[in-house]
Amino acid sequence: MERLKDFLESVRPKIDQFMLEVLRGEPERLYEAARHLPSKGGKRLRPALVLLVAKALGGTTEAALPAAASVELLHNFTLVHDDIMDRDEMRRGVPTVHVVYGEPMAIIAGDLLYAKAYEALLRSPQGSDIVKQMAEELTWAAVTVAEGQAMDMMFEERWDVTEEEYLKMIEKKTGALFGTSAALGALAAGRPELKDLLKEFGLILGKAFQIKDDVLSLVGDEKVTGKPKYNDLREGKKTILVIYALRNLPADEAEELKRVLGKRDATYEELERAAELIKKSGALDYAYKLAEEYERRAYEILGSLPTADEEALATLKELADFAVKREY
Amino acid sequence: MERLKDFLESVRPKIDQFMLEVLRGEPERLYEAARHLPSKGGKRLRPALVLLVAKALGGTTEAALPAAASVELLHNFTLVHDDIMDRDEMRRGVPTVHVVYGEPMAIIAGDLLYAKAYEALLRSPQGSDIVKQMAEELTWAAVTVAEGQAMDMMFEERWDVTEEEYLKMIEKKTGALFGTSAALGALAAGRPELKDLLKEFGLILGKAFQIKDDVLSLVGDEKVTGKPKYNDLREGKKTILVIYALRNLPADEAEELKRVLGKRDATYEELERAAELIKKSGALDYAYKLAEEYERRAYEILGSLPTADEEALATLKELADFAVKREY
Repeated sequence: MERLKDFLESVRPKIDQFMLEVLRGEPERLYEAARHLPSKGGKRLRPALVLLVAKALGGTTEAALPAAASVELLHNFTLVHDDIMDRDEMRRGVPTVHVVYGEPMAIIAGDLLYAKAYEALLRSPQGSDIVKQMAEELTWAAVTVAEGQAMDMMFEERWDVTEEEYLKMIEKKTGALFGTSAALGALAAGRPELKDLLKEFGLILGKAFQIKDDVLSLVGDEKVTGKPKYNDLREGKKTILVIYALRNLPADEAEELKRVLGKRDATYEELERAAELIKKSGALDYAYKLAEEYERRAYEILGSLPTADEEALATLKELADFAVKREY
Repeated sequence: MERLKDFLESVRPKIDQFMLEVLRGEPERLYEAARHLPSKGGKRLRPALVLLVAKALGGTTEAALPAAASVELLHNFTLVHDDIMDRDEMRRGVPTVHVVYGEPMAIIAGDLLYAKAYEALLRSPQGSDIVKQMAEELTWAAVTVAEGQAMDMMFEERWDVTEEEYLKMIEKKTGALFGTSAALGALAAGRPELKDLLKEFGLILGKAFQIKDDVLSLVGDEKVTGKPKYNDLREGKKTILVIYALRNLPADEAEELKRVLGKRDATYEELERAAELIKKSGALDYAYKLAEEYERRAYEILGSLPTADEEALATLKELADFAVKREY
């Protein structure tokens, strides 16, 4: 994935500079809280997706940069509020915003990041017709992500979540912003007629990405992911792994797994045992296959694009591949 | 204020219908939480301001309705998050969203209301150039309100907040959205050249409104305001009343007042005594005079407008008057 790595390295400073530029203001403590998470790294996959799609369709990085910064700001806004709701204390290897700044300030910092996502987007150099469409896309993503987050949270209280419901939930929670990122790339390149196709591509890619995220929460190395292992189990998240395991384990082992899921004060041994049961059920293999199937469909769409830049297209393919093969 | 009353009665169903239309979706519980506050009343002054300004400048209610619904949605978003941050349990005479739906759902419900504010705005029938300007205005308001809310919260920890700092804070926290409402009215009427003048009018009006809000928290009837009396004292808010009283009371009484301010578990007797000290300082009279001075300046701007509709202008004057004279 050398292409992707080089590309991310070359655009990251531009994305970060644009983001930090709109995150200057007063009161200083609020802006400090808003900068906390964006300044602690992150993969920048969503803005990279905007920039790569724009480039692949003949646009420039400069013209797509405000939209790229915008989706990353929106993403960070959702993370800040999500961490409060899930009571998560670590992300990107550092304490979360509400842990450092307190919950009230973290709520406003999230709100500010959201507003700044629009501020960044509205600086796009395209004509008003295109910029209006961009704002519609960003709004659709914000609405849909909120719906997905609510579903994710409500699923914690239920044992009967189906795979179909799960797939709907991750399409909203994660797919929507990937979809919007790709759509914004098409708009930034002045190709509104390709917006819907690219959105479809992003949605599928986002689902593959989320499935891999679920897998990493179970088998990832927390030094590499930056998030505490087994968080999903402790919070009772109905991931594809849990849904598969509960359906396929013998009744007594399914019951044993259920006793640990959502147990906030579960011991590490209990969590390890729950993870072992999930692995035993064959859930990891099932999840990998599902993610790979999405990757394959994402490739298909890429293959059908009228591409202006073969190098950017090849990098996009690596990005789709990375979503599934990554270790962080 | 018969004109204003009649106007509010005639436009309220339209504003509410538009808002509730965009607040339909799934999961149902999230949308229910998002509708909780908007469906419990509220004065609808901000959307009325959009509609009245548009009408006064020759626009129509229909063309300004999406923008009107938008500012009310944004306002409700800020209230939902503000109530979480301030731990307020009652508003509009009913329990707040986080009390009914829990804090995590209330955070997302607020986020959804915010996204829906853009969704409503982007349905405006004006050309893309105008709609883009509208989105810029809304974004400016959202950023500025977040800054104001952070200042308001940070002031709770300080004793040395000056009147100047207070005025800056309320200009952001409350003035900004009134300013944007009036500016959106001008844009909706197709008069972008009047946007800044109207924004100035709204900012001033919003400050008068907030000063009156501070007064009502001290002397209002909670059956009429829908909010518990003395909330501001319990939370240690540095209102104009508190700032004036601390500056003008004899040292021993100022100390006595300080001991109650920000005391979450203060008894009703302690709060009554604190209120008495504030009244004794002459703060109420000072606040009234300040609010009236802002009202006078707001009138001046109205007088300078090239008005297309005298009836709408007269109603706008009543709205400015109501901001200061209201009992709720």
